[in-house]
Amino acid sequence: MDTELGRAPQRSFELTQVTEWEDGRVRSVQDSLAAEEPLEIRIGGVPLTVTMRTPGHDRELAAGFLWSEGLIESPDEIGALREAAIDGSSKSNVVEVELHGAEFDPEGLKRNFYAASSCGICGKASIEAIRVRGLTRPNADFKISPDLLCQLPDRLRERQQVFGRTGGLHAAALFDAAGELLIAREDIGRHNAVDKTIGWALLEKRLPLSNHVLVVSGRGGFEIVQKALTAGLPVVASVSAPSSLAVKLAREFGLTLVGFLRERRFVVYSGERRCVS
Amino acid sequence: MDTELGRAPQRSFELTQVTEWEDGRVRSVQDSLAAEEPLEIRIGGVPLTVTMRTPGHDRELAAGFLWSEGLIESPDEIGALREAAIDGSSKSNVVEVELHGAEFDPEGLKRNFYAASSCGICGKASIEAIRVRGLTRPNADFKISPDLLCQLPDRLRERQQVFGRTGGLHAAALFDAAGELLIAREDIGRHNAVDKTIGWALLEKRLPLSNHVLVVSGRGGFEIVQKALTAGLPVVASVSAPSSLAVKLAREFGLTLVGFLRERRFVVYSGERRCVS
Repeated sequence: MDTELGRAPQRSFELTQVTEWEDGRVRSVQDSLAAEEPLEIRIGGVPLTVTMRTPGHDRELAAGFLWSEGLIESPDEIGALREAAIDGSSKSNVVEVELHGAEFDPEGLKRNFYAASSCGICGKASIEAIRVRGLTRPNADFKISPDLLCQLPDRLRERQQVFGRTGGLHAAALFDAAGELLIAREDIGRHNAVDKTIGWALLEKRLPLSNHVLVVSGRGGFEIVQKALTAGLPVVASVSAPSSLAVKLAREFGLTLVGFLRERRFVVYSGERRCVS
Repeated sequence: MDTELGRAPQRSFELTQVTEWEDGRVRSVQDSLAAEEPLEIRIGGVPLTVTMRTPGHDRELAAGFLWSEGLIESPDEIGALREAAIDGSSKSNVVEVELHGAEFDPEGLKRNFYAASSCGICGKASIEAIRVRGLTRPNADFKISPDLLCQLPDRLRERQQVFGRTGGLHAAALFDAAGELLIAREDIGRHNAVDKTIGWALLEKRLPLSNHVLVVSGRGGFEIVQKALTAGLPVVASVSAPSSLAVKLAREFGLTLVGFLRERRFVVYSGERRCVS
């Protein structure tokens, strides 16, 4: 199983020469930058969207994006997922998706996508359309002990250290009920890191993730809770603060939302009974 | 001059009852959440986009968004900016923009917006379109001393403490060459905090900001550099790491990009001569 962030391609970071100033002393040093490059997702040859992402696991990103944005309703709809390079580039910066289904209309999908979804939640053309389709209440029987929950950030950081040299990446990881890390992904965009983990689960035929915990390195915003609900996740935990709308959405659907998960303390904003007996 | 973050409306945060777990001890406590709510921007009555933002300074956000995304080319194009409530809501969650100009076509603008821009840089429908229009090289003569630069994060934090109780907000601030803070804005989205500061400058007829420094609380990504260039800013400084694409864009246009600005140290990724003699 590919649980090693260290296997991510070299394109995940870039080396560059920079100038360091420290208390009046100036020197030229080499620095690692978190890579940020545009990725175009095409469906049936038609450009659907461009997202800024950290290269690596692009097929998972495309699959997770299509799923978490409600553009596909079953993993079986994906016929092919190919990485390609846009004209003149030596780098892969396109994922070509072929979908099954006679009724498939890329232009219609594109119109619908812009009207109802557009890259997470920004760009949605009406407030009413902001809650995506078919979100159901996650598994009520799932439980995880507070002691185990407190260990998850450290387990994620152990993986991050493999190539977390840039200080500029967000991480997302899936854990099972025993606290075993299934998969961890990093990206300059928190939503992309989540899409990569969900896309991995989709391509591995592991959805819904009814007995799993999603841990994110940063803040728990609305889009993270929304994406977690599409994957059937019962628990989302972050090391930082959630937003008001993330809490509202989690409470509405009975998802357990944990914030400020650090050392031996955390705050539960919704669904306490899954982690605090 | 409105430089006080503390004047932001009460809607910037929300109080809620949460469960705190600490080393086996469970208690119910009141917590402050950074508010996150959708804002719809309408042009001539036509919905253009919805962005998730922290309520407050919404007119500035709309103005800054239109400017930094290249949807208007002059502040004079803005005829009116009104806050409104969407049907059935008691809260303002719409900004209605009226633009001058006989050639104005809201549907055409909307099509163009989705095709070429869409809320920062996500949702762009082609990689080629990612660099927005009319970016020029910022003022080559502007300089700021390293000692002064090092003081700016503290000056921003002093303002943030006024209502920075939630731990979940990004901040952006404009400083002049003497290190005086002109304006500071907070938002759950870093790009929104930047749009609010640029929108403030636009509405105050202070663009271009040829002798100013933009300080952001988080990471310096591509979109932050892009937005800074549209405002004519010569220097962008952040307390964290920039991305590879942010550095490329800054170098291409000769913008000074500073990262890891903490205490008495910083790293310059581009345009050293403005801050390191």
